[in-house]
Amino acid sequence: MTYTIEEIARALGTEARGDVSLQIRRAAEPASAGPDDLALAMSPKYAEALSQGQARAAMVWPDADWQALGLRAAILAPRPRMAMAGLTRMMDPGQGYGPGIHPSAVIDPSAELGIGVCVGPLTVIGAGAKIGAGSVIGPHCYVGTDTVLGEGAFLREMVSIGARVHIGDRFIAQPGARIGSDGFSFVTPEVSGAENVRKTMGDQGGAKAQSWLRIHSLGAVRIGDDVEIGANATIDSGTIRATEIGDGCKLDNQVHLGHNVRTGQDCLFAGQTGISGSVDIGNNVVLGGQCGVVDNVFIGDGVIAAGGTKILSNAPAGRVLMGYPAVKMETHTEIYKAQRRLPRLLRDVAALKKAVSKLGSSE
Amino acid sequence: MTYTIEEIARALGTEARGDVSLQIRRAAEPASAGPDDLALAMSPKYAEALSQGQARAAMVWPDADWQALGLRAAILAPRPRMAMAGLTRMMDPGQGYGPGIHPSAVIDPSAELGIGVCVGPLTVIGAGAKIGAGSVIGPHCYVGTDTVLGEGAFLREMVSIGARVHIGDRFIAQPGARIGSDGFSFVTPEVSGAENVRKTMGDQGGAKAQSWLRIHSLGAVRIGDDVEIGANATIDSGTIRATEIGDGCKLDNQVHLGHNVRTGQDCLFAGQTGISGSVDIGNNVVLGGQCGVVDNVFIGDGVIAAGGTKILSNAPAGRVLMGYPAVKMETHTEIYKAQRRLPRLLRDVAALKKAVSKLGSSE
Amino acid sequence: MTYTIEEIARALGTEARGDVSLQIRRAAEPASAGPDDLALAMSPKYAEALSQGQARAAMVWPDADWQALGLRAAILAPRPRMAMAGLTRMMDPGQGYGPGIHPSAVIDPSAELGIGVCVGPLTVIGAGAKIGAGSVIGPHCYVGTDTVLGEGAFLREMVSIGARVHIGDRFIAQPGARIGSDGFSFVTPEVSGAENVRKTMGDQGGAKAQSWLRIHSLGAVRIGDDVEIGANATIDSGTIRATEIGDGCKLDNQVHLGHNVRTGQDCLFAGQTGISGSVDIGNNVVLGGQCGVVDNVFIGDGVIAAGGTKILSNAPAGRVLMGYPAVKMETHTEIYKAQRRLPRLLRDVAALKKAVSKLGSSE
Repeated sequence: MTYTIEEIARALGTEARGDVSLQIRRAAEPASAGPDDLALAMSPKYAEALSQGQARAAMVWPDADWQALGLRAAILAPRPRMAMAGLTRMMDPGQGYGPGIHPSAVIDPSAELGIGVCVGPLTVIGAGAKIGAGSVIGPHCYVGTDTVLGEGAFLREMVSIGARVHIGDRFIAQPGARIGSDGFSFVTPEVSGAENVRKTMGDQGGAKAQSWLRIHSLGAVRIGDDVEIGANATIDSGTIRATEIGDGCKLDNQVHLGHNVRTGQDCLFAGQTGISGSVDIGNNVVLGGQCGVVDNVFIGDGVIAAGGTKILSNAPAGRVLMGYPAVKMETHTEIYKAQRRLPRLLRDVAALKKAVSKLGSSE
Repeated sequence: MTYTIEEIARALGTEARGDVSLQIRRAAEPASAGPDDLALAMSPKYAEALSQGQARAAMVWPDADWQALGLRAAILAPRPRMAMAGLTRMMDPGQGYGPGIHPSAVIDPSAELGIGVCVGPLTVIGAGAKIGAGSVIGPHCYVGTDTVLGEGAFLREMVSIGARVHIGDRFIAQPGARIGSDGFSFVTPEVSGAENVRKTMGDQGGAKAQSWLRIHSLGAVRIGDDVEIGANATIDSGTIRATEIGDGCKLDNQVHLGHNVRTGQDCLFAGQTGISGSVDIGNNVVLGGQCGVVDNVFIGDGVIAAGGTKILSNAPAGRVLMGYPAVKMETHTEIYKAQRRLPRLLRDVAALKKAVSKLGSSE
Repeated sequence: MTYTIEEIARALGTEARGDVSLQIRRAAEPASAGPDDLALAMSPKYAEALSQGQARAAMVWPDADWQALGLRAAILAPRPRMAMAGLTRMMDPGQGYGPGIHPSAVIDPSAELGIGVCVGPLTVIGAGAKIGAGSVIGPHCYVGTDTVLGEGAFLREMVSIGARVHIGDRFIAQPGARIGSDGFSFVTPEVSGAENVRKTMGDQGGAKAQSWLRIHSLGAVRIGDDVEIGANATIDSGTIRATEIGDGCKLDNQVHLGHNVRTGQDCLFAGQTGISGSVDIGNNVVLGGQCGVVDNVFIGDGVIAAGGTKILSNAPAGRVLMGYPAVKMETHTEIYKAQRRLPRLLRDVAALKKAVSKLGSSE
């Protein structure tokens, strides 16, 4: 499939210059671009490499002198990553799963598949499941009993969704994503050392060794529209009510959401971030990679945490966090700088003690 | 399936009050409870919301004035989470995997299945595998060659267990759990920079760049009774002997256990915790989420670590740990408080230096 | 299968002593070794336990007095782990997947399988895929459209590889490894708070709440020869070009590589380490468990990072790192020691202030 420069610019809602009838087959980095590729040169730094490739057209920054760069056509990208969103969507060759319902799929007769649903080889659709129109369920997937998937879902290979999960429209799940695993919830017959430590911040008290009893998860998972869940991520079911993920949330690979977590809309959690049970998260919260959130806390709207931040208490709306334990990013920077000066500080204080002692004795 | 208040109370070993013949269909949060639901109102805070729902019966704290809360019946829960364990077990609707052995399952003729074993669609049971009576093997599972599973196992979808693994009774595995992956064990022909760094705590010495040779895992995994492994968790095989997980241990989602790890009984490892190779862990050890343990150390009985703790050396029995590197929780709290005062401390010491220098010169 | 002591020593390229015709069936730990086992006693500490077992032969350190240890034969291991690499390779009983192509596998007619390729039950091979000679594709695997696997690959159960991935020879993937998931790349129509925070190190500015638009991954993954990927690890596709993993790299369980990451050769990333998007990594880089690397940085050749290190900026070649944020390991040790003395330091400075104030007033 090819597109003209004009078609691409129109789809991106941006402007084109030069020979807008040029046919484009692929997007490419400037140095490796062929004559039918659209080179991505949205900053002068990347444009330098254009001469190493053969691109005749490129996506460039708004006031680029594209003719001086040796191009015959250019698409202007005032916000480069926005242009990338539109362009990569047009150019995506997909996974090639093939149309229709593969004969090896095991679909319960009571399941309901909407118009145009595709089901890959060796996928299992459970009893009472409903799949919305236009959804693509990849190979080796599992959709559980009475689970409801909205329209236009795209499940990559080996995704599993447990029983009674409700998911909105345009859901995307990457390979190996797990929705609806049981929550991790256990209790000892009598008060445990861990319970005492929580109260005392460090003292186990006289608690004796005990075995763990399981609290089952009755609550499944409820996911809004336009949500994406990353590869091998895990979303636990709630205990009584559902674990909830709001509209527009994007969760990266290996993210973990514990039971009863509730998120607002448009949150973004990067790779390997883990949210403990019963955390309440607002809208537009951004957590970098490998963040952690302790159970039962509240994260307000618009909180942003840098990669590796461990949030151990409530975070008010708009707060920008970093560190373990999390503090305001600016406080973290201050502490961090001070830490690096610590060894010298120790020497300074030792010298001061000596000096003061001398002054004191000479007095 | 419904239960009377009396039946529930008897099953939980606790007391009921009021109209104990009321029929209950579900457990529910107070605000969303319908007339046939048992509302969970085990503290005054939760009981407030009863008026928003339609519950006629609730589980309440022992001296609650349940009649004043507008209830017709009440179950007393002196230890709320213990009551939850019993109640959720009764009310669990399960995954609906269906009975019997699905015709699409691929079961080696030499495998032995106990009485009442269920096998889901598209599951593979390898040669010589033995599955104990009453076990439910979900859809898309893999049970490896000569692997032995005890009675009453419950494997959710897409669980895989490698060859020669031995697992006790009542094993539970969440979706995507991996048992018996190969250990991560490599060596360079000559001493590597990483080996030197371990000895010198920072100096690579003159080690040259080399490729890695693989040490194979001959030892499989041995798991006791009543163990649960979380979604997408990974348990590596041992090198020579088996990696061992003791009776009653519970591992959360995305937990990783390296080769040769040995745990005692009744340990609890929360989400995304990672244990490096050859760590020796006692009984009743509790590690919060995202903890890490360096290889070849010893963690004594009853050690508790807060979420995010990185244990870099042996931990004696009963120790409560926090931080990276892990220190006693109370030490961590002290250090943390001091850190927050660091920027001010730097200013104080600068002022002191000036003052002392002035005193010295005026002397 | 059994081997003589002589055969084993010859295969390992090392020397044997005593009755080198003894037949060996297994490798074993000294205390549990039977009469036909080779006990692993490569240090005096391990040799002590020989008397508890029945081993007649052992692998020992070069100048061990093996006769005094009660042995009839010994293999000398000057570098014990190197000997382990050779020995475990010989003794590995494998997973017993069985030969040939299982009839339940779903193989697209356009896929090309080399000579001697084995395909396990319920595995899917997509259109246009090419599998090199001698490869073993385990049960429940997925090999995507137009993906190329070199010779001698070994895929454990439930491995998935997306479309258009290129992988070299002798590839090993542990259960549940995911190759070619989509990159985690999103953009808001206007500048977001997270973008502002990156620039200002803490200030969100006036950015308003927005939804996320997806940037698709067009670039797949390219992997060299002799690479191993751990259980449930995730390797994202690149945005325009492929994500690249160089020859000889070994990635442990639950490692995550973001889109556009490029690694050199012979890198070793331990369990649960996460590399954000567009990180450029040199050769022979060793990252301990649970390390994290922020996006768009450069890690030079031979960098070594201790477990739990979070690398937030470029790391020059040969650097040894530790901590969050990462600093030189020796700096980390210094800071850490100083931290533990912090509470006392605070008291010292308070005392100094009092003393200086007294001196000042007495002046």
